[in-house]
Amino acid sequence: MSSVEISPVTTKLLAAKKLKGLTFGDLEQILGRDEVWIASLFYQQSAASEDEASKLLHALDLGEELIPELTTYPTKGLGPIVPTDPLIYRFYEIMQIYGMPMKEVIQEKFGDGIMSAIDFTLDIEKEADPKGDRVKVIMNGKFLSYKKW
Amino acid sequence: MSSVEISPVTTKLLAAKKLKGLTFGDLEQILGRDEVWIASLFYQQSAASEDEASKLLHALDLGEELIPELTTYPTKGLGPIVPTDPLIYRFYEIMQIYGMPMKEVIQEKFGDGIMSAIDFTLDIEKEADPKGDRVKVIMNGKFLSYKKW
Amino acid sequence: MSSVEISPVTTKLLAAKKLKGLTFGDLEQILGRDEVWIASLFYQQSAASEDEASKLLHALDLGEELIPELTTYPTKGLGPIVPTDPLIYRFYEIMQIYGMPMKEVIQEKFGDGIMSAIDFTLDIEKEADPKGDRVKVIMNGKFLSYKKW
Amino acid sequence: MSSVEISPVTTKLLAAKKLKGLTFGDLEQILGRDEVWIASLFYQQSAASEDEASKLLHALDLGEELIPELTTYPTKGLGPIVPTDPLIYRFYEIMQIYGMPMKEVIQEKFGDGIMSAIDFTLDIEKEADPKGDRVKVIMNGKFLSYKKW
Amino acid sequence: MSSVEISPVTTKLLAAKKLKGLTFGDLEQILGRDEVWIASLFYQQSAASEDEASKLLHALDLGEELIPELTTYPTKGLGPIVPTDPLIYRFYEIMQIYGMPMKEVIQEKFGDGIMSAIDFTLDIEKEADPKGDRVKVIMNGKFLSYKKW
Amino acid sequence: MSSVEISPVTTKLLAAKKLKGLTFGDLEQILGRDEVWIASLFYQQSAASEDEASKLLHALDLGEELIPELTTYPTKGLGPIVPTDPLIYRFYEIMQIYGMPMKEVIQEKFGDGIMSAIDFTLDIEKEADPKGDRVKVIMNGKFLSYKKW
Amino acid sequence: MSSVEISPVTTKLLAAKKLKGLTFGDLEQILGRDEVWIASLFYQQSAASEDEASKLLHALDLGEELIPELTTYPTKGLGPIVPTDPLIYRFYEIMQIYGMPMKEVIQEKFGDGIMSAIDFTLDIEKEADPKGDRVKVIMNGKFLSYKKW
Amino acid sequence: MSSVEISPVTTKLLAAKKLKGLTFGDLEQILGRDEVWIASLFYQQSAASEDEASKLLHALDLGEELIPELTTYPTKGLGPIVPTDPLIYRFYEIMQIYGMPMKEVIQEKFGDGIMSAIDFTLDIEKEADPKGDRVKVIMNGKFLSYKKW
Amino acid sequence: MSSVEISPVTTKLLAAKKLKGLTFGDLEQILGRDEVWIASLFYQQSAASEDEASKLLHALDLGEELIPELTTYPTKGLGPIVPTDPLIYRFYEIMQIYGMPMKEVIQEKFGDGIMSAIDFTLDIEKEADPKGDRVKVIMNGKFLSYKKW
Amino acid sequence: MSSVEISPVTTKLLAAKKLKGLTFGDLEQILGRDEVWIASLFYQQSAASEDEASKLLHALDLGEELIPELTTYPTKGLGPIVPTDPLIYRFYEIMQIYGMPMKEVIQEKFGDGIMSAIDFTLDIEKEADPKGDRVKVIMNGKFLSYKKW
Repeated sequence: MSSVEISPVTTKLLAAKKLKGLTFGDLEQILGRDEVWIASLFYQQSAASEDEASKLLHALDLGEELIPELTTYPTKGLGPIVPTDPLIYRFYEIMQIYGMPMKEVIQEKFGDGIMSAIDFTLDIEKEADPKGDRVKVIMNGKFLSYKKW
Repeated sequence: MSSVEISPVTTKLLAAKKLKGLTFGDLEQILGRDEVWIASLFYQQSAASEDEASKLLHALDLGEELIPELTTYPTKGLGPIVPTDPLIYRFYEIMQIYGMPMKEVIQEKFGDGIMSAIDFTLDIEKEADPKGDRVKVIMNGKFLSYKKW
Repeated sequence: MSSVEISPVTTKLLAAKKLKGLTFGDLEQILGRDEVWIASLFYQQSAASEDEASKLLHALDLGEELIPELTTYPTKGLGPIVPTDPLIYRFYEIMQIYGMPMKEVIQEKFGDGIMSAIDFTLDIEKEADPKGDRVKVIMNGKFLSYKKW
Repeated sequence: MSSVEISPVTTKLLAAKKLKGLTFGDLEQILGRDEVWIASLFYQQSAASEDEASKLLHALDLGEELIPELTTYPTKGLGPIVPTDPLIYRFYEIMQIYGMPMKEVIQEKFGDGIMSAIDFTLDIEKEADPKGDRVKVIMNGKFLSYKKW
Repeated sequence: MSSVEISPVTTKLLAAKKLKGLTFGDLEQILGRDEVWIASLFYQQSAASEDEASKLLHALDLGEELIPELTTYPTKGLGPIVPTDPLIYRFYEIMQIYGMPMKEVIQEKFGDGIMSAIDFTLDIEKEADPKGDRVKVIMNGKFLSYKKW
Repeated sequence: MSSVEISPVTTKLLAAKKLKGLTFGDLEQILGRDEVWIASLFYQQSAASEDEASKLLHALDLGEELIPELTTYPTKGLGPIVPTDPLIYRFYEIMQIYGMPMKEVIQEKFGDGIMSAIDFTLDIEKEADPKGDRVKVIMNGKFLSYKKW
Repeated sequence: MSSVEISPVTTKLLAAKKLKGLTFGDLEQILGRDEVWIASLFYQQSAASEDEASKLLHALDLGEELIPELTTYPTKGLGPIVPTDPLIYRFYEIMQIYGMPMKEVIQEKFGDGIMSAIDFTLDIEKEADPKGDRVKVIMNGKFLSYKKW
Repeated sequence: MSSVEISPVTTKLLAAKKLKGLTFGDLEQILGRDEVWIASLFYQQSAASEDEASKLLHALDLGEELIPELTTYPTKGLGPIVPTDPLIYRFYEIMQIYGMPMKEVIQEKFGDGIMSAIDFTLDIEKEADPKGDRVKVIMNGKFLSYKKW
Repeated sequence: MSSVEISPVTTKLLAAKKLKGLTFGDLEQILGRDEVWIASLFYQQSAASEDEASKLLHALDLGEELIPELTTYPTKGLGPIVPTDPLIYRFYEIMQIYGMPMKEVIQEKFGDGIMSAIDFTLDIEKEADPKGDRVKVIMNGKFLSYKKW
Repeated sequence: MSSVEISPVTTKLLAAKKLKGLTFGDLEQILGRDEVWIASLFYQQSAASEDEASKLLHALDLGEELIPELTTYPTKGLGPIVPTDPLIYRFYEIMQIYGMPMKEVIQEKFGDGIMSAIDFTLDIEKEADPKGDRVKVIMNGKFLSYKKW
C-alpha cells in the first residue's frame, strides 16, 4: 500500500470516471477547465464553483450530495515528505538537482522574488518523438517581487 | 546562513561571472548550451566536456585548474529534505499539491511509467504581462514505460 | 487527503455552521468572542465555558451533548512538523525567514524574554487595496522577561 | 551552542551595531526602511540596493567590501525544522495551534488562497500595559487567490 | 506488527496462492512473466494487462472483480524510510556501503548517467553451494545518459 | 555540494587514479580483486590486507603512509538516509518497490532468513544492446536461515 | 497509548497465556524452545513449524485456525525509530554508548565482520543478588567475516 | 566517511594502542578493568579515575596532558539515530525484533521495571565453534523496579 | 485533533471521573497513592496491583472487567518526538535549555551517573502568589552511579 | 563525540572553573545567583548583567573580553531532538511518560494554561538516603492562563 492516502471522495470520482470511460481530456471539453486542474479537483487540492461541481458530477453520473466536498476550500498537500512513487519522485529529484540553478536563472531575469504557485497554471503535453515520446510540463506562475518596507 | 551549502567552486564561478558582468544568457551564447544547464554546471550538478569547461573558464577569466572539478561526474543533490528558500520551496509545494494530479494525467496519456529526469531538458522564459510578468518553466523528459519481464 | 486530521467534532461544527449560513464574524456577534478564537474552539484548540459552549451549540442548532467536548481543556497542536497547506506554510516560512530578525528587534525593545503565546490574542482584518486586498494579522502577546534566580 | 548558524557577515554587522551603540530603530531613521526589514538584512534574508548597502555600512563604520554580500539575493531560511529558541518557538506554536483557525477565517473573508509572504510587511510595536508590556506583531500580506485554469 | 502495511488485495492474493499450494515459480509458468514481477503485482507495485490479471485470478480461483485492482497503475513504494525487516534492510545496507563504489564503477564504464529502474528487470536464483546455498540477485537496467541541452 | 561527505583519503585515491589514467578495471588486474570491491576500498568501506594496500598504493604512485588508513576496519555507511544522487537513489527505489516482492520470492525458495550482505559479492557488467547498453548488477550472498533456539 | 502497535494475534496469544496462568518458562518446557524465542513468536517476529504452532495453540487452549499466522515468515521489526518504552530504550542506550567500544573489541578478537543476528540466540537469566537482583542477557551469534572478492 | 564522528582524543588513543601493538585484552591486564569498559573510555563514553587515566596513558606512552579528557564525566552517546555500520546495526536490529519479547520475559521474571544501563556490565567472549566461531555478548544490569508513590 | 493518541481505557476512566465529580486529589485520598501516579495509571503508564485497580474502579463506578488493563505492565511512552501541546512542550524546552546545566550541577554534587526515572516520584503543588499562582514540580529520583567493571 | 556541541566560551569557562577548583555552589556564594542559573550562563542559555559577568570572570581569573559573550541575549536550545546523554534523556523520558498525567493534574488545579518556562526557577538538591542518595529537582514556574479574546 502506497504512502499517499487517497480519500473516499477521490476514489469515488476516479471509479466513476473509469466506469464512464472518460479521460481527463474529455472532462476538459465538458468543464472548460484544464485537465490537470480537473485532476487536482479529483484529489481535493482545488475547489470548484457550485456550477463546476454540478457539471462534473453530472458528467460522471454521480449525485449532487458530493457538491459540498468539491466546493470546500481544501487543506492541501498530498504526500509524504519524500515521495516514493517514481513518477512523482522525479519531480522531487528535479528540484534537488536543478533547484538552485533555476533560482539563479529566475533571479537573473526577474530580481529577488519567487514564481507564484498560487497565481499559477500547469499544463501537460505529449510530444511525439521517433526515439520515444516525450512528456512536456509547462508551469506558468506570476513573478512576485520581494517587497521592501 | 541558509541550509544549502555552496561549494568553493560554485562560489568562485559565481563571483567571476559577477565580476565580468555576464549573465547566464550571455554564457548560453558563448557555450552553445542552455542557461539552466550552465547554472547546473556552476552548482556542480552536471558535468562538462573538457572543451566546454575550458570555454567557460576562459569566458570567466578563470584558470584551467578548475577543469577537473567541472568535468567530474558529480554526486548530485543540493538541498535539505524540505527546502527553506521560498523560490525553491514553491516547486516542492507544486509537487505536494499537483503531484498526484500530474501522475493521473501523464499516465492517462502515456500508460504506466515516468517522465525521465535524465533524458530531460528544462527551460525558463520570461513572459511579459501587464498584470505582472510571469515565469514560464518548461520541463521536457522522455517518457519511460515500465518494462514487464 | 491532507496531513491535518480533522476530528469528528470539528467536522460536525463546520458542517452545522455551513448549513446555517453563518460566518465566524456572525458568531463573534453572538458569542462576544473574537472570530479567530471561535475558530480555534471549532478546531478544539481552545476550551469554552459551559455558557459559551451552550450559546454556540444553540446558534448552530446542535445538541448540548457536545458541551463536554467544547469545555474540556484540549491537548493542543494541529499539524505535521512542516505544514503542507500553502496558507499555513506561509506562516512557517515567515518564521524561517523573519524569526531571527524578529528576535533581534523584540529583544532590543524589551530585553531577554519572549512574547507569550498564552496571554495572547490574534486578529485578522481585511484591508481593501486597489492593487489587491491585503490580509492583516495582528498578534498581541504579553512580554515575559526571563527570571534570574 | 544554538542550532541556528550565524554567518560571519551577520556577526560582523551585529558587532559593529553594538559598538556604535545603534538600535535597529536608529537604523530605521537612517535608511528609511523598517527595523524588521533591516534586521532581516543583517541576517542575510533580504537583499539591499547598492545605495542602501552603502548607507548601512557607512552608518556602522564598516568598509564597502561587504556591499556584494548585502546586495546578493540570498538563499533564504534560517532555522532548524522545529526551532529551539523559546522566542522563535512561540511563533511556531502559534502556527501549530491557530494555523487551521486562521485558515478558516482568512478563507471566509477572502476565498480560496493565501496571504503572500513575499508582497508582505512585518512590524513590531511595544504596547505599554500596567499589567506588563505587550509585544504587537503586525503582518500584512497581499491576498493571492488560487487561479483556476 | 511490522511497519509495512499490506493492502487487503495483497492479503487476498497471498492467501489464495497459499491455499492453492502454488509457488511464484508455478505462476511464472502459467503467466509467462517472471516470478519477481508477479510478486510485485501481488504487492500492487506493477500493473497487469486485463488478460494477465484474468489469467492470474483464474489460477488462484479468485473472482474477476479484482481485475480493476490489478490493472490500475499503482502509486508505488512499499516501505518506511529505513526498512526494519532484516531481509529488506540488507539491500538498504548494500546501498549504504556499496552505493558510492557502484556509482564509480558504473560511471567509469558508461559515463555520467544512471541505471534505469523503469526499463529494468530483476531475477532471483538459488545457487547450490556445499558451504550453504547462495542467493543470486540479477538487476538489469538500461543505462540512461544525462542529456545536455 | 552533495550530501555524501568524501573523506580526504578517498579524494587522494581518486585523484591519483585519475592522474595515472587507471580504471577500476585496470586495478582489478593488478590487485586480483574485483573492481567494485576496490572501489569500496577507495571509499573506506572495506579493509585491505597490508599486502593489498601496498600494491594499490604502488600502482597509484602514492606513499605507504596511507597503509594504516586502508587496513583499518572501517566504520561503514556512506550516505544520508534517503540518497539524493540519482544513480544511488534508483537502488533505493528498487528496494522501495521490489523489496517485499523479493522477500516473498527469496523466502519461497529458501525459507525464513536473509541474503547475507557480509558473505557477499557484487559485480557490475556492461551489456551491449542496440536499443541502448544495459547495466547488469549481480549480487551474490550466502543465504542465512533464522536459527531457532 | 504506546507507539508499538500490537497485532490482534499477539493480543490473543498473550490473553490466552494469562488466562491459563502459564509463564513463558512453562511454555519453554512444553515446546522445547527457549522462552525468548517463544515470546518472539507471540510478537510475530519468528515463524514456527506446523508442529510447534499446533503444540503452542493446544497449550493455550486456542483453535488451530491461528496456525497460518504462526507459520508465516513475518515481516519483522516492532518499533519506532527511537523506542519510548524505558525497558527497551535502555538497550538502545547501550548501543548508543557501548556500540563503538563493542565494535573495537569484537573486531580485535575476530577481524572485520559482524555478529550475526540471524544465526543467533538470546537468553535471559535472573541472577539473585542481595543488593538487588540482576538481569543477565546473553546474546550469542555466529561471527561473519567480510568476504573479499 | 561514516556518520560516527570520532573525537581527536579517541583517534590519538587508538593510534597509540596500534603503535604499541597492544590489544584491549592487554590493557585489561594492566588496568584491572574489563576490555569493553576500557574501549568505552577510549571513545569518551566513560570516565576514569586520575589513577586509571595515568596508568592507561603510561601504557600507551602518551603524556599526562590527556588526563583531564579521560577523567571528565562525558556527555554520552556516539551515534546517529539509526546506525549505518553493519556491526552496530545488528544490535539495533536485535532491539527492533527481540525488544518486545525481551520485555515480556524480563517483566515475567522480575515485575514492572527495567534492566539498569548504569549499574551495568558488558562482556564479550569468543566461543570457538567448528561451524564458525561465535560472538558471545553478556549484559548484566541491576533490575530496577518502578516505584509507586 | 492532537498528536497524542488517547486509548479507549483512558477515555473511559477520565469520563467516569468527570461524571463522579472527583479530582485526582480526591482519588489520592481514596487510593493512598499520589495524584500524579494515579494520573499516570489513567494514561496506562503505570501498573496497579489488583487491589488498587479494584479500589479505583469502585470509586469511579466502573466494572471490574477493566482490572486486567490496569494491572498489565504497560508499554510506555505517550508522545510524539517533539510534543505540540504547549503545557508539555514547556518541559521539553526546559530540558533543551537547562539540560546541560542540570547535568553539570548534578554531576558536581554526585559524580558520574544519572537520576533514576524508575526509582522516582513526582509531585505537583500549587503555590499561591499575589503576582500569579505558581506551579511547583518536585522530581525525586535515586542517584545511580556508573558502575565500572 | 557527543551530539551536543559545546561552544568555545563554554569550554573556556568550564576549564577555568576546574583550574580554580570552584564548584557551582561556590559561584552561587560569589554571585548571589543559583548554581543552576550560573551553569546555564556557562552554557550560554542565560544572559548576565555587566556586573554579574564581571564578577564571574573575576572569580574565574578570566579577562573581561568575555563580557559581551555573557551579556548577549542568547539563541537558546542545546540539544538534539532526542538527547542521547543518559542523564538528560531521563528527563525526556519523564516527559514522555508523565507528560500527559502532569497536564491532567496541573489543569485540574489551575485550569487551562501552562507552567511558564520563562518566569521560572529550577533548583537541585542532594537528599541523603541510606538506600542511596537522591536527586531532588524543584521546578517552579508561574501559571499562565489561556487568555480568551
